[in-house]
Amino acid sequence: MENENIIMDFERRKRCAIEEAVFCEFKTPDQLEQILTLAKQNNKTLLFTRLNQEKFFMLSKHWQTTLTYHPVARCAVLGELPKLTNEAPPLIAIVSAGSSDASVCHEALLTLNYHGIAADLFQDIGVAGLWRLLDKLPQLQQYSIIIAVAGMEAALPTVLAGLVDAPIIAVPTSIGYGISVGGNVALQSCLSSCAGGVMTVNIDNGYGSACAAIKIYKKIVNRS
Amino acid sequence: MENENIIMDFERRKRCAIEEAVFCEFKTPDQLEQILTLAKQNNKTLLFTRLNQEKFFMLSKHWQTTLTYHPVARCAVLGELPKLTNEAPPLIAIVSAGSSDASVCHEALLTLNYHGIAADLFQDIGVAGLWRLLDKLPQLQQYSIIIAVAGMEAALPTVLAGLVDAPIIAVPTSIGYGISVGGNVALQSCLSSCAGGVMTVNIDNGYGSACAAIKIYKKIVNRS
Amino acid sequence: MENENIIMDFERRKRCAIEEAVFCEFKTPDQLEQILTLAKQNNKTLLFTRLNQEKFFMLSKHWQTTLTYHPVARCAVLGELPKLTNEAPPLIAIVSAGSSDASVCHEALLTLNYHGIAADLFQDIGVAGLWRLLDKLPQLQQYSIIIAVAGMEAALPTVLAGLVDAPIIAVPTSIGYGISVGGNVALQSCLSSCAGGVMTVNIDNGYGSACAAIKIYKKIVNRS
Amino acid sequence: MENENIIMDFERRKRCAIEEAVFCEFKTPDQLEQILTLAKQNNKTLLFTRLNQEKFFMLSKHWQTTLTYHPVARCAVLGELPKLTNEAPPLIAIVSAGSSDASVCHEALLTLNYHGIAADLFQDIGVAGLWRLLDKLPQLQQYSIIIAVAGMEAALPTVLAGLVDAPIIAVPTSIGYGISVGGNVALQSCLSSCAGGVMTVNIDNGYGSACAAIKIYKKIVNRS
Amino acid sequence: MENENIIMDFERRKRCAIEEAVFCEFKTPDQLEQILTLAKQNNKTLLFTRLNQEKFFMLSKHWQTTLTYHPVARCAVLGELPKLTNEAPPLIAIVSAGSSDASVCHEALLTLNYHGIAADLFQDIGVAGLWRLLDKLPQLQQYSIIIAVAGMEAALPTVLAGLVDAPIIAVPTSIGYGISVGGNVALQSCLSSCAGGVMTVNIDNGYGSACAAIKIYKKIVNRS
Amino acid sequence: MENENIIMDFERRKRCAIEEAVFCEFKTPDQLEQILTLAKQNNKTLLFTRLNQEKFFMLSKHWQTTLTYHPVARCAVLGELPKLTNEAPPLIAIVSAGSSDASVCHEALLTLNYHGIAADLFQDIGVAGLWRLLDKLPQLQQYSIIIAVAGMEAALPTVLAGLVDAPIIAVPTSIGYGISVGGNVALQSCLSSCAGGVMTVNIDNGYGSACAAIKIYKKIVNRS
Amino acid sequence: MENENIIMDFERRKRCAIEEAVFCEFKTPDQLEQILTLAKQNNKTLLFTRLNQEKFFMLSKHWQTTLTYHPVARCAVLGELPKLTNEAPPLIAIVSAGSSDASVCHEALLTLNYHGIAADLFQDIGVAGLWRLLDKLPQLQQYSIIIAVAGMEAALPTVLAGLVDAPIIAVPTSIGYGISVGGNVALQSCLSSCAGGVMTVNIDNGYGSACAAIKIYKKIVNRS
Amino acid sequence: MENENIIMDFERRKRCAIEEAVFCEFKTPDQLEQILTLAKQNNKTLLFTRLNQEKFFMLSKHWQTTLTYHPVARCAVLGELPKLTNEAPPLIAIVSAGSSDASVCHEALLTLNYHGIAADLFQDIGVAGLWRLLDKLPQLQQYSIIIAVAGMEAALPTVLAGLVDAPIIAVPTSIGYGISVGGNVALQSCLSSCAGGVMTVNIDNGYGSACAAIKIYKKIVNRS
Repeated sequence: MENENIIMDFERRKRCAIEEAVFCEFKTPDQLEQILTLAKQNNKTLLFTRLNQEKFFMLSKHWQTTLTYHPVARCAVLGELPKLTNEAPPLIAIVSAGSSDASVCHEALLTLNYHGIAADLFQDIGVAGLWRLLDKLPQLQQYSIIIAVAGMEAALPTVLAGLVDAPIIAVPTSIGYGISVGGNVALQSCLSSCAGGVMTVNIDNGYGSACAAIKIYKKIVNRS
Repeated sequence: MENENIIMDFERRKRCAIEEAVFCEFKTPDQLEQILTLAKQNNKTLLFTRLNQEKFFMLSKHWQTTLTYHPVARCAVLGELPKLTNEAPPLIAIVSAGSSDASVCHEALLTLNYHGIAADLFQDIGVAGLWRLLDKLPQLQQYSIIIAVAGMEAALPTVLAGLVDAPIIAVPTSIGYGISVGGNVALQSCLSSCAGGVMTVNIDNGYGSACAAIKIYKKIVNRS
Repeated sequence: MENENIIMDFERRKRCAIEEAVFCEFKTPDQLEQILTLAKQNNKTLLFTRLNQEKFFMLSKHWQTTLTYHPVARCAVLGELPKLTNEAPPLIAIVSAGSSDASVCHEALLTLNYHGIAADLFQDIGVAGLWRLLDKLPQLQQYSIIIAVAGMEAALPTVLAGLVDAPIIAVPTSIGYGISVGGNVALQSCLSSCAGGVMTVNIDNGYGSACAAIKIYKKIVNRS
Repeated sequence: MENENIIMDFERRKRCAIEEAVFCEFKTPDQLEQILTLAKQNNKTLLFTRLNQEKFFMLSKHWQTTLTYHPVARCAVLGELPKLTNEAPPLIAIVSAGSSDASVCHEALLTLNYHGIAADLFQDIGVAGLWRLLDKLPQLQQYSIIIAVAGMEAALPTVLAGLVDAPIIAVPTSIGYGISVGGNVALQSCLSSCAGGVMTVNIDNGYGSACAAIKIYKKIVNRS
Repeated sequence: MENENIIMDFERRKRCAIEEAVFCEFKTPDQLEQILTLAKQNNKTLLFTRLNQEKFFMLSKHWQTTLTYHPVARCAVLGELPKLTNEAPPLIAIVSAGSSDASVCHEALLTLNYHGIAADLFQDIGVAGLWRLLDKLPQLQQYSIIIAVAGMEAALPTVLAGLVDAPIIAVPTSIGYGISVGGNVALQSCLSSCAGGVMTVNIDNGYGSACAAIKIYKKIVNRS
Repeated sequence: MENENIIMDFERRKRCAIEEAVFCEFKTPDQLEQILTLAKQNNKTLLFTRLNQEKFFMLSKHWQTTLTYHPVARCAVLGELPKLTNEAPPLIAIVSAGSSDASVCHEALLTLNYHGIAADLFQDIGVAGLWRLLDKLPQLQQYSIIIAVAGMEAALPTVLAGLVDAPIIAVPTSIGYGISVGGNVALQSCLSSCAGGVMTVNIDNGYGSACAAIKIYKKIVNRS
Repeated sequence: MENENIIMDFERRKRCAIEEAVFCEFKTPDQLEQILTLAKQNNKTLLFTRLNQEKFFMLSKHWQTTLTYHPVARCAVLGELPKLTNEAPPLIAIVSAGSSDASVCHEALLTLNYHGIAADLFQDIGVAGLWRLLDKLPQLQQYSIIIAVAGMEAALPTVLAGLVDAPIIAVPTSIGYGISVGGNVALQSCLSSCAGGVMTVNIDNGYGSACAAIKIYKKIVNRS
Repeated sequence: MENENIIMDFERRKRCAIEEAVFCEFKTPDQLEQILTLAKQNNKTLLFTRLNQEKFFMLSKHWQTTLTYHPVARCAVLGELPKLTNEAPPLIAIVSAGSSDASVCHEALLTLNYHGIAADLFQDIGVAGLWRLLDKLPQLQQYSIIIAVAGMEAALPTVLAGLVDAPIIAVPTSIGYGISVGGNVALQSCLSSCAGGVMTVNIDNGYGSACAAIKIYKKIVNRS
């Protein structure tokens, strides 16, 4: 009865293609340890997102050493990552506007890898220096799915969507200040994009963008 | 020199998989007629979205009879619709929460059809009467892409995303009043979804949801 | 004259069915001790809400040992809790979407108990894994009043209101990030519910939801 | 197949105590006539809310004469209203701050009557002239459920909740201008109430307040 | 030249009836010490507002001992307070809804006293327990100016304005949480008041309310 | 019983110095005629605010000829205006930034006159052409109360408050577009004023500014 | 005395380089005719902005024929436009993202021309079809000042600012719907631009962008 | 390969007149050191903005001693500042409303100096004490470009724009509280300015205002 305040959804991958992950930002270390125990008892791997270093170090030593912690992605993994798919190039690219967006990019990348899917990462190619994007364009045109990560005025997903034929999953980030603090301008800008085929997820939601990409990826791969 | 204030992007399909469409809400009848003339001269078909009946009837008789007008979708088409793909069932389903969302659903459907892609339509299966959704679930689980259209508190995309393995393109609608007038609550609710794999487009953006679906569709079909 | 800057409302239960409680978030430890002294002098029990651990430990040792502190609920009680009513099952259920909502649930539960009323608690049955809710549905249909606690897009109260005949008191929580940070999306979603019979209280207001439930409870019980 | 874009929920009363009603604001006259035909075929009564006079007069003559139209409430009823319960006084009071709130009050009253439940109506007793409320207080203290309707700064539900032991269902209205245009200040004021036991529904949602009251009413009456 | 980045307005009282005060929240201790030096050189008294204890203790010992610090008001005074006017009762009352509003009340009171004006203080008489306000009403009806301080839904200024003939200067406070966090609901509620004669100042602006009261006070007193 | 949905507050002047007025924006012509009849029966004069021409002309001919209509102020008066006070100059000035603010100025002026109080009007002296304000400054410095009416960025009340010793009642107006549409920027600007002694009322609330001025006026005059 | 409610600022050009213009949106035809009479008496030319056709046709025939009306710009001019400067190319370019932005472009162009300054106009080169902008880039790099007009997500000013060395005056437009309705997203996007040298004016403020350009233009030309 | 997540834009000055700067607020010390190493390898100078003292002291000792840190401006410079231009007076003035705005002023000044451009600084001349501004007016009228820095209600840019013929670059600051916390009121006030020729940059964006000024400066100087 001890853990009845937590009900894990271990069948989620079967039902809707993606694994349950544990969003740690509002959970106490106690709650996380209950979840870890439950997962271990069921012999499950598990992905922990939004787990900052402070909270990670509040876990007991046992769990600190059992988990693999990814500081840039602010994530931890219980168990081994699976072997990655080996399409060359991978079907998915993650593109970011600035180096401040690194956390979100790596959360997305790790989530993909956790599901066994490879992806390429292109950072710091925002449109204020357009040549950086145009330089990579021939490469970018080869992917089947693009996750575009950008803060501030978030023009990158729009410009990109006009240049490639892949669906764009836009991830606005909380990078900004003044009027754009917290990422709302970036979010609204992505949603207002005058270029077709841009879909948006919540601010900083690298995990969610990867989930969406996984669902699309599986439909592409399973069909073929 | 007459039309140099309008620059059509007739190569868009080649570049990024979707045709240019003309968003009519902020254009004058004069501007629309200039665009129609330009398209006709170039022997192009063209899709006009957000063209309400009042504005349609302000066009000259010539253009009124030349265009095919779709009143529920509030769209017009210059030229013939292409023959539809014949996957059975189609890869794409459009699902709506209430019958007030019909305009947005039909704008999405027509946009797909305009690109030669078939889709099935499931209307009025919002979660306040959950049995309506559960009744259709076995059918819904067969699609590769689902466009989920909902206003008010927009719980449908979230519930659906937990029940199927297809990517969900959520289209919040402006159906609502008081706190939810204009669709912002629906939009924010979709973006906040705690279910993985929900991607969101702008309020009432049936056209945009279809563009995204087309890009995904082509990646699925071309791969196989 | 010393305490004239505080005027306790000790007759509130007689007048409007619920006891005064002390909302501690904006009060200094000094003010709390004045209130405690005043209550003690009047031989009153008292409920303290939104009293986080940091502030609790800033009270003098005397009061720390006199009060009973409930860390999950972030509440303290001066005096004994009354004996609970023994309807079986209780008339009231508290339902939450995720385990991050535990504080709010326990604040509501403790407030009910402080007024001598029992309630059952169902945690972590949010709609992203709909089977969790459907599993509990036969049980949930037995209650007379349901307090539904949810953050993020807060679809739970809406789905629930379509499945049971009890009035739903929705408590949006501040669980969320990006667009839903602070709980405004959850709040607006509850208010926009397209299902009938959903009433909403302020974000994280477990105490207030319990007060409303108590007023309804007394009308039910006193009538019979 | 003709009406498959509309799925009526005729079993709603059995499942969750309240009848389905048709929210007309975003529906076309065509859609309303489809629904009327469907209801007639199934021999059902039906309540239509938010049906303004302009739209009512766009229905065919047949339906105009078949329906009973209530102009202040902006509602129409298909079929007969049931006989009302005869508790004396009724269990429910509807209270409003100003005479501008009349539409919302009557929408709530009609919804109650449509479900066979009587209620008393107290209008124009807002707190700017406090004597008006205090005059009625002995009467108001007799009810089991109070629906409190107020716009502008909406102080009425708060003052009332401190004076009676009944649960208060607050309905903020869109009466206001400048900062309070559209009713958001009234809504937020109700949600922020420092008095216990206030529950809030969406702006102008007289129908929803009645649904909530009905669910509470049935629990009171069925228990006794 | 050293202090040319600061230009004191020592003639303000002559020009517009109130002394310059130093708003400390965004100034560094260095800047405050420059201002103190400048005032001392000019032999001026000076009022420092929004000076929290942390910042006060970052001043040099010299200034800490020279200044008189008022912790509840979060203010400091350089020099002596003047002798107060001795109208009996004073012309001005400061009224607050809850004991959490004490800081704002005392900032207003100290500002009045700094200008040589007496005032009476009535705390914790918010409308959720209406008897507290009605008890004090005969006293309150004697004042010429009332500063009404309230957070949350801020119904106090509205109720008061309907009961007395004095102008009401409403000071919304940042006391609140969820929808009312930061005081915006209180502010908007004061501005939307349906009672005549309510004027509003910025959230927590005890100083500003006192300035306004001083300007009115001088017009009353100088005329007579 | 016919009019029991309207409760007039004919004793308001005695209780709180200002007459009840009828805010017409949300009332139907029917409701206005009921109020007129009630006032006539009680032999009362009455002020109607926010009564635009369209609605005025929807009243019966009888009432159109009985009332005196003021088109710029958008107000009507039942009965005679009283004889004005004859202080020279009057104690109150109404100052506006632009000629677009005329309606609000005249609503304030008429309200004062309706209470028998004279006032001077200075229009179109906004700070973008500062000489216009500085030209009038010697005159403006003579008043005891200034109502300052301004839209857009509303800098006028701030500049004025630094130049005169009278209390400033700021009335932001809805004059503006883009970011300042509806008057919220003007409102927020007034509330944020860094000049002491500015009090603010709701957007376009000429009536409310006059009520506040009347309460201050009476305290000044009655004291002397 | 008749016109004392209007004070024209005929010396503005001397004082701050730009002529006064009359913003017509909130002025009545009566007020406009008073202003026209005043200008005519003083033998002045005058620019009228935001004068839509409906209001223009409400002026007397005399003024309709005296004024030159520009329907796309929604402006009218009293008197002759001056001879334009003949730099080749002009120093100023006006660039727009879409043909829906034409009104704002022409308001800016006419304002420049009204001050005797020539400018070139590049319409419909938004970044969703990036080739349109890149095609014009060599031309655009020749200007000294660029006014960039864009709605929706307004990525154009950002992309442009990274490609040219001229200062960019961004004019967000109200072109948009859903989340971007009214132009707030465009505005916020311009303000958040991660490219240096972008300055922003209010939504749709073509006139204001031209005023700023004129001030810069004169400093460039007068210096040389 | 080590630094491929960072792509420096060292050719920015050639392309668009201003140097790349590094916005440090969202970068980790690790990222900053990677950038420093890259710049050093390329023998580049570099400007670091929004680098608070805490983060600066988290850099390695080597970089702390290599960089020149400017605490008021919260900036650091790698390499030497260039020799300043010697126009007398300089073409650019930076003007601020209050001494709390010092950080933003100095960020702008340092950015100009980093590009070799001199500027004069006028602090604490806000309009609440108008004489401070009028005193400096003859001096201020001599500049070609004015950067106006103001928080709270930000009336300074508007008043200034009506008094000088130079273009005004308004920088709203985050100085404010209550309704104006974070600087949004200041921003909106600048954008709503009824005075012509005011252009606005993001809140606290001293760097951006300087970039804009540099682009204008170069056009003025290069033309002459």
